[in-house]
Amino acid sequence: MKRIIILGGGFAGIYTATHLQKLFKNHRDQYEIVLVSRENYFTYQPMLSEVVAGSLGVFDSVSTLRSLLKKSTIYIREVSEIDLNERTVTLSPNFAHTDLRIEYDHLVIALGNVTDFRSSSGGLHEHALAFKTLKDAIKLRNHLIEVMESAAIESDPLIRKQLLTFVVGGGGFSGVEIVAEMNDLVRLFAKKYATINPSEIRVALIHKKDRLVDKELSPSLGRYAEKLLKKRGVEIYFNTELVSATPQEAILSDGKRIRTSTIVSTVPGNPNPLVEKLPLQMIHGRIQTDQFLNAIGHTNIWSLGDCSAVPIMNSDQICPPTAQFAVRQGKCLAHNIYATCTGVKHKPFEFKALGMMASLGHRKAIAELFGKIKLSGFIAWLLWRGVYWMKLPGLSRKIRVGFSWILDIIIPQEFVQIKTEVHNGITHLHYAKDEVIFRKGDVGDFLYIIVKGKVEILDPFKDKEIQIAVLGNGEYFGEMALLRQKKRSATVRCLEDTELLAIRKNDFTVLLTNFGNLKEEFIKTENDRIKKISSILEIGDIRDFPDDQSPPHSCHG
Amino acid sequence: MKRIIILGGGFAGIYTATHLQKLFKNHRDQYEIVLVSRENYFTYQPMLSEVVAGSLGVFDSVSTLRSLLKKSTIYIREVSEIDLNERTVTLSPNFAHTDLRIEYDHLVIALGNVTDFRSSSGGLHEHALAFKTLKDAIKLRNHLIEVMESAAIESDPLIRKQLLTFVVGGGGFSGVEIVAEMNDLVRLFAKKYATINPSEIRVALIHKKDRLVDKELSPSLGRYAEKLLKKRGVEIYFNTELVSATPQEAILSDGKRIRTSTIVSTVPGNPNPLVEKLPLQMIHGRIQTDQFLNAIGHTNIWSLGDCSAVPIMNSDQICPPTAQFAVRQGKCLAHNIYATCTGVKHKPFEFKALGMMASLGHRKAIAELFGKIKLSGFIAWLLWRGVYWMKLPGLSRKIRVGFSWILDIIIPQEFVQIKTEVHNGITHLHYAKDEVIFRKGDVGDFLYIIVKGKVEILDPFKDKEIQIAVLGNGEYFGEMALLRQKKRSATVRCLEDTELLAIRKNDFTVLLTNFGNLKEEFIKTENDRIKKISSILEIGDIRDFPDDQSPPHSCHG
Repeated sequence: MKRIIILGGGFAGIYTATHLQKLFKNHRDQYEIVLVSRENYFTYQPMLSEVVAGSLGVFDSVSTLRSLLKKSTIYIREVSEIDLNERTVTLSPNFAHTDLRIEYDHLVIALGNVTDFRSSSGGLHEHALAFKTLKDAIKLRNHLIEVMESAAIESDPLIRKQLLTFVVGGGGFSGVEIVAEMNDLVRLFAKKYATINPSEIRVALIHKKDRLVDKELSPSLGRYAEKLLKKRGVEIYFNTELVSATPQEAILSDGKRIRTSTIVSTVPGNPNPLVEKLPLQMIHGRIQTDQFLNAIGHTNIWSLGDCSAVPIMNSDQICPPTAQFAVRQGKCLAHNIYATCTGVKHKPFEFKALGMMASLGHRKAIAELFGKIKLSGFIAWLLWRGVYWMKLPGLSRKIRVGFSWILDIIIPQEFVQIKTEVHNGITHLHYAKDEVIFRKGDVGDFLYIIVKGKVEILDPFKDKEIQIAVLGNGEYFGEMALLRQKKRSATVRCLEDTELLAIRKNDFTVLLTNFGNLKEEFIKTENDRIKKISSILEIGDIRDFPDDQSPPHSCHG
Repeated sequence: MKRIIILGGGFAGIYTATHLQKLFKNHRDQYEIVLVSRENYFTYQPMLSEVVAGSLGVFDSVSTLRSLLKKSTIYIREVSEIDLNERTVTLSPNFAHTDLRIEYDHLVIALGNVTDFRSSSGGLHEHALAFKTLKDAIKLRNHLIEVMESAAIESDPLIRKQLLTFVVGGGGFSGVEIVAEMNDLVRLFAKKYATINPSEIRVALIHKKDRLVDKELSPSLGRYAEKLLKKRGVEIYFNTELVSATPQEAILSDGKRIRTSTIVSTVPGNPNPLVEKLPLQMIHGRIQTDQFLNAIGHTNIWSLGDCSAVPIMNSDQICPPTAQFAVRQGKCLAHNIYATCTGVKHKPFEFKALGMMASLGHRKAIAELFGKIKLSGFIAWLLWRGVYWMKLPGLSRKIRVGFSWILDIIIPQEFVQIKTEVHNGITHLHYAKDEVIFRKGDVGDFLYIIVKGKVEILDPFKDKEIQIAVLGNGEYFGEMALLRQKKRSATVRCLEDTELLAIRKNDFTVLLTNFGNLKEEFIKTENDRIKKISSILEIGDIRDFPDDQSPPHSCHG
C-alpha cells in the first residue's frame, strides 16, 4: 500500500485531496490519501468578514475536513518535522507525550505561509488584531463588542475616545473588506447604546499608496470604494503607513498618533519556517516547482498554494497566492500524481485569473472580471454573494449559509461576547515614547519587566512631577502594589519605545509562592525602594536618582 | 434621581429588572435601573446541553442583556466591592486601570453562588470539566471533538482507551442530562471515523446514591432514566463517588480507577465570597431575607435567587436555588421596591414549585408535575421542548432556536473544533500515586514544579528501573529536556498524590531569558545532575540517592 501525504488543510490541500479521491477511486486498496491539518476544519475565507459583521453564524464559514474528505485519512496535528531522506513526516503530540512519524511515497506540501506579526516591529505583534483565520474573526468580533460595552459606561473622555476609535492598517483587499464590515457593525451597535452618541465613533483606514485596492483592482473601482467608505464615515489616510501599535495608540509613518484600543492590520505573510528549512530549491522562501507542480529535482515531492512558487506558463512570473490559483493547482497536481502512479501523461499547470471581488458591506461590492468588466454597487454585491455561495463546499453548508442570511434579514442582530480566552500568564507589551503605563492611584494588576527600553518613575507631588528613578533593560516595576494589595504609588512613563513583559497578579503570586528566592528578592528590593523614596520626597526634588545605589533589579510602583 | 442597582445577570437579576422596568415606566426621570453583570448576555441554562450536543448553535441559548432590558443601564464589569455604609458598589477596571464606584438607593443582590471546583480536592479543580455556563458548554464540546480526533489516529491501545472513555460524576439532574447528550454525541461522532470502532467507546456515570435523580424526582422516573441510559450504552456506578481526577484517570471513592481524558463533574455551589463577607444576616453563606425579600434589618437591601435564603410561606424551609423560584422572586421583589418608593402595599413571596423536567436526548425526557403527574419518553420530551421554547425570552430568540431545530433535522451535524483558548503560562496539575508523569523518550514540553507530594526519577536501564532520585515539595524536574531541546532522559512516577505546576516550554524560555539568575541556577543544577546521573549509572544500582549532595532545588528529566 502506498501513501500520499498532503500537508495543510487550506484551499490547496483540500482541493488536491478531493481530486485525488476521485482519481484513485478504483485504487483504494493500493493508495492511502492522508491529509494533515492543524485545525479539524476548512475555513472558507471569503465569508469570514460576514462572521465579524454577524450576518453569518460562527461556524457558517467553516466545514469539517472529515465531512469534505470522506475517503481520506485525516490527522489533526501540528507538523513538527519533514524528513525528505527518510521520506517521513513527524507530527507533534497531543494528549500523549510521544510524537507520531508517518512514511510517505508522495508528499504534497500545501502549508501556506505563516501569517503573523512576529516579524513586525513596533508592537504590531503585541497589539494589532489580525484578520485571516476563523479564530481571528471570532476574536475581532468579541473585541469590538468588548470595547463598545466598556465605552458605554466610561466617563473619562480620553479613554472614551480611545475606545470608540477603530483603526485598520492596509487598504488592500482584506483591509477594505474588514473596515467596511467593522464600520457597519460599530455604527449599528452604537444605536443600541443610549449612552453612546454615534458622532463619537471614529473609524480610520490607513493606506500607504494614494488609492485603495491599488494592487488588485482598477483605479475607478478603488475610487468607488473610497467614496463609498467616506460616505459611511470612514476616514482614509493615504500615503502613510501603520508602523507601530501600543495598548492605547496607533502610530503612523508620518508621525501621526491616533488614540485607539482597536488596531486591525493586514497580516504580513512570511515563509513557513518548516518549509523554509527544507533542502529544496526556493524563491523567497517559497518552494520552486516545475510546471507540473513537482519540486525541482524531486519526482515525489509536490507543492502548491501560498508556500510554493509555481511558474505561469509562457511568462517569467509565478502564480499569485490566491484561492483561485490554489484550487486549480490542486486539480492539476492531483492529476500529475495519478499520472506518475499509473503512467498516463502529465499535464502542465495552466490558468488565467478570472477576476477579483471585494464586498463593501451594506449590499455593496466591487468586482473586476477577466481584466475588463468592472462592476460596482448592488450588482457586484449580488455577484459576490452568488459566486461565493455557489462555491461553498457541500449542500448542507449552502443550506446553512442560506438560512443564516434569511435570519439576518428577519431578526435583529445580537452582540453576544464570548470570553473564552484565558489571559496568558505572561503578556508581551509595546509602549511608545511618552506614553504612560500607569498612574499613581490606579489599580495594581500587573508586574512589569522591561525587556528593552527605558521608563521613568514619577511621583506627582505638590503640583509637580518628581522623577524618582529611571529604569532600563531587565529591571522591573509595579510589584509594590501587587505585594501589598494596594493602589499604584507612582506614575510610570516611557522615556523611549519600550518592550515589556506583564505578569498578571495571580500568576505573580503563584511564582512567588513557588520560587522562594524570588520572593525574598522582591521583598528586599521593595524595602530598599520604600526607604529611598521616602528620603527623596523629604529632600524634595532630586531628579537624578543615583544609579549606583540601586539594587541589581530596582523596582517601583 | 434615585438609582436601583441590581447585581447579577442570571434569571433572578433579569426578571427583577424586567418587572422594575414595567413598574417604573412612568417614573423614568426619577428612577434609574442599573444592572451589573460579568457577561453581556443572559444564559438560558435549560438549553445548554443542546449546545454541547450540537442541536443548537453556540449563541442560540443566550440573549444579550441589552436586547432584553432596553430601559435599564447595563454595566458589563466584575463587582469588586459592596459598601453598605457608603451605599456604593465598586466595579473592576477593564481597558483603563481605574475602578468605577456607583452609588445606589436600593441594592438588589442576585449574584448567585460561585460554582467552581476551587474548594474541591483531589484534582477536580485542575482536571474535571464543569457544566454550568455557556463557556463550559463550548469548552466541553470542543474537548469532546479534540479527544475523538486524537483517538482516530492513536495507535497506542492504552491511550486510545483513555481517549475513548468518558466519565460523568453525579447522577442528579444536570449529570443525567449531560451524560445523555454526551453519550449520543460521541457515538454519533464515532460513526464518522473509519478508524474508531463504536464498541471502543465507554461512557460511565458515577452516582453516590442507589438511584438517579434521587433528590429531584420519584423513584420510578429515576429507574426509567437508568434503563434508558443503560440501553444506550452508559455504564452506571451506584453507591460510589468521583473523588479525584488526574490528566489520565478518574478515581472513585471505592478505590476504582477509570482511565480517561474526559471527566465531567457536577459543580459544587459555594457561597459567593463577595456576598459572604457582607455584614448581613446569613444562613450557610446565603443572605437571609424576610418574606418581602428584604435582607433582614435593611429596608433598601434586597436579595433573591441562589445567593439568598428566602423563607417559604407557612413553613420553616427556604426556597430551593432553581430558576422557577428566582423568576417568581424577581417579580415579587420588583413589586416591593416599587411599593417602598410609592407607598403601595408590600406583597409577601408565595409560590409552589410546578414540577421538574430533564431531557435524556434522542427525543426522550422525564417530567414530574405538581408533585403528582409523572411523564416519561417522547411525551415528556415534547413537553420539555414546548415549555422551554415558550419561556425563551423574546420572539427573535424563539425564531432562532426554531430555525436551529429545523436545520438539525435536515442537515447532518458538523463537529468543528474551535481552539480559541490559549494555554495558560502556568498550569496546575494533580497526579495520583503510581501514575507516570512522563517516560524516558517522550517529547519534552513542560517544566514541572512540585507544589505538594513526592515523585521518583527512574531510568529504565538494562531491563530494570533504577531510581535516580526522589523529589519533594518545592523541587522541580523536566527542565533538562527543555534546556537542551531533547527528549526526556528519565521516567518520572508519583510516590504519592502530587500537586504540580507545569510551565510550558515557551513560557519557560521567556522566564529564563528575562530572569538572569534563574537561568544560571537551572544550568548549574543541570550540570550537577548530569555528573551525578552518569556516576550512578556507572556504579549500577544505587536506589537511595544521597539527599545531602543535591543542590537546593534538584532537577531531572
